[in-house]
Amino acid sequence: MADAKIRLYVDHPLAGGQSVPLTEDQARYLFAVMRLQPGALVLLFNGRDGEWLAEVAETGKRGGRLVCQSQTRPLQAPPDLWLVFAPVKKARTDFIVEKAVELGVARILPVQTQFTNSERLRADRQQAHAVEAAEQCGATFVPEVVELQPLDRLLAGWSADRRILWCNEAKAGVATALAGQPAGPWAILIGPEGGFSDRERAKLAALPQVVEASLGPRILRAETAALAALTLWQAALGDWK
Amino acid sequence: MADAKIRLYVDHPLAGGQSVPLTEDQARYLFAVMRLQPGALVLLFNGRDGEWLAEVAETGKRGGRLVCQSQTRPLQAPPDLWLVFAPVKKARTDFIVEKAVELGVARILPVQTQFTNSERLRADRQQAHAVEAAEQCGATFVPEVVELQPLDRLLAGWSADRRILWCNEAKAGVATALAGQPAGPWAILIGPEGGFSDRERAKLAALPQVVEASLGPRILRAETAALAALTLWQAALGDWK
Repeated sequence: MADAKIRLYVDHPLAGGQSVPLTEDQARYLFAVMRLQPGALVLLFNGRDGEWLAEVAETGKRGGRLVCQSQTRPLQAPPDLWLVFAPVKKARTDFIVEKAVELGVARILPVQTQFTNSERLRADRQQAHAVEAAEQCGATFVPEVVELQPLDRLLAGWSADRRILWCNEAKAGVATALAGQPAGPWAILIGPEGGFSDRERAKLAALPQVVEASLGPRILRAETAALAALTLWQAALGDWK
Repeated sequence: MADAKIRLYVDHPLAGGQSVPLTEDQARYLFAVMRLQPGALVLLFNGRDGEWLAEVAETGKRGGRLVCQSQTRPLQAPPDLWLVFAPVKKARTDFIVEKAVELGVARILPVQTQFTNSERLRADRQQAHAVEAAEQCGATFVPEVVELQPLDRLLAGWSADRRILWCNEAKAGVATALAGQPAGPWAILIGPEGGFSDRERAKLAALPQVVEASLGPRILRAETAALAALTLWQAALGDWK
């Protein structure tokens, strides 16, 4: 990586000898901001084909072209784990998305709950933030960030085979709760800072897919809870074993 | 807590009927900024005596006095776990300190390593940041932040009975590495973004107190590694069981 420090996400197939056209934004970044010349090396990934070393073949103000040389890393796809969370303040929501990318999730689903403080979340911005996090942390996969939706609607269409790790108070710890559970499809559910409403709690407790677990005796902020739950799930059922 | 949303750290004993004098800064915050009047309720903690509900007894521009009524929560002291880390950029160092408070550590020790980017760290500022994090997250304990010191010097005086969880690559996962280990005194060691030098690695590998473990197949930033390691240690040997 000494010769290719820039990592760039592209929405284009990557393979040996593959020519990769650049968008205007990418060309501006590589050629105007980073001042790369023809022959310079860049690392590319697209979330599907792993990471590739690519050489600048054509530069331009509004575009350009790279050519893939060799794969530097295979795709490191995450387990089939979703993160469902109620957005908090922007900096902390950004943080949740960034850390979910680093720790490895397949999909990020922001939900509105009865006590959610933030009524809006721009999924396109959070998707761009996920791409940027992947570029910076060396990830080869980028989870999809879906549009904000009401928790009720999400649960109404929930598939029977996807278990939900609900981080709740006063129950067994996550490691205990996950012991003996199948790896299969899972989701982690993190509530808003104000907690779930009684109605929401009753609904969740009645869902057969739900596994309740505690994140220790201290009060954790939403983003800390998300990160801790992702870590414990990865260690128990994911690819950290 | 409906009547007492402000949580304040004070460096003073807390007990039923105890009178607690305020510093000028605290008085300014409570009376000028938050505009509390005599009779208003505040939550106090000092890191030793748990959390107490206290009533404003005297207000003033340069001071004031609260009187403790009843204990609202006992002290939730963390396990004897230290976090040793190489400082990164300020926002991310702040983050490590904040999350260490939330997840529960006894002591925070920033160290200079050969590849540490940040040469300076103001322990007094990070201590204030730890207090603020504790005020905000409901913690009743505040870990001590010690002055930045060279890793070599810290290791030279390391006690024989404090194990070190060294988050390294290409070894067993943390949960596996910690299985069967005693709870006793521990420290978690997180390297700088550039990793440890060969000399440092050799030194660590030779220390009998060191237990090496991996944090999964993805590259984690320093602050993410710190949080993930703290979480896994708490679940395996700490008070999250």
